[in-house]
Amino acid sequence: MERIPILRIGSLLLITIQLDMHDKLALQLQDDVTHRISDYGSTGVLIDISSLEIVDSFIGRTLANIAAMSRVLGAETVVVGMQPAVAITLVELGMSLPGVRTALTVEAGMDLLLTAVNEAGNESEDERSQA
Amino acid sequence: MERIPILRIGSLLLITIQLDMHDKLALQLQDDVTHRISDYGSTGVLIDISSLEIVDSFIGRTLANIAAMSRVLGAETVVVGMQPAVAITLVELGMSLPGVRTALTVEAGMDLLLTAVNEAGNESEDERSQA
Repeated sequence: MERIPILRIGSLLLITIQLDMHDKLALQLQDDVTHRISDYGSTGVLIDISSLEIVDSFIGRTLANIAAMSRVLGAETVVVGMQPAVAITLVELGMSLPGVRTALTVEAGMDLLLTAVNEAGNESEDERSQA
Repeated sequence: MERIPILRIGSLLLITIQLDMHDKLALQLQDDVTHRISDYGSTGVLIDISSLEIVDSFIGRTLANIAAMSRVLGAETVVVGMQPAVAITLVELGMSLPGVRTALTVEAGMDLLLTAVNEAGNESEDERSQA
């Protein structure tokens, strides 16, 4: 069966989307990502879309869904490698990818995730010290 | 045009193969990998094949070619995520992937590459100190 592989790198998960995303594949990916986060206790999800030349509303919604599901499981999501043409189309379609952070490269995305994780850690420490 | 994305993580390049590899795609990948190594001065190439259920002699030869080309450019190659069935088929086909190191997961592959790079560094230092 077709399946998008999820690579584990330290506390992060890395997903490279290359195939055209259809309904079944998107549901499978959501299922796989949530299970990996819960299995490995991952704190960040990096989704590389550099090989996608078209991001339609379905893929946009899938990305937003994965980000929202990851957040409730305690992991931040960053989408990396968006092509300029994709950014233009997304804005023209009126889609702003709510709740999804973006970065230009995988490395920048990793930095962003590690900073976000540290901030989240500090915040919960602050809450604890205030309690 | 269809193209397999190459992600840069520090001094390593990460390639996730998901599509069926045909002639043109394989040549494009060899071309892309060699250019990236020379552009970024990468010291290691990680190729994830966890989503491949079949590795035929063509893909095997492509992997071996990429490893050989990377080596002359100064980068080690590790193939990660091979499915058990693929390993069985490769051996039954009489293919041993000469010159290609393998590891079970991306993390193990990264460790292997970083060790290999350090060893290579020490060797050249030894050569220098002997000279």
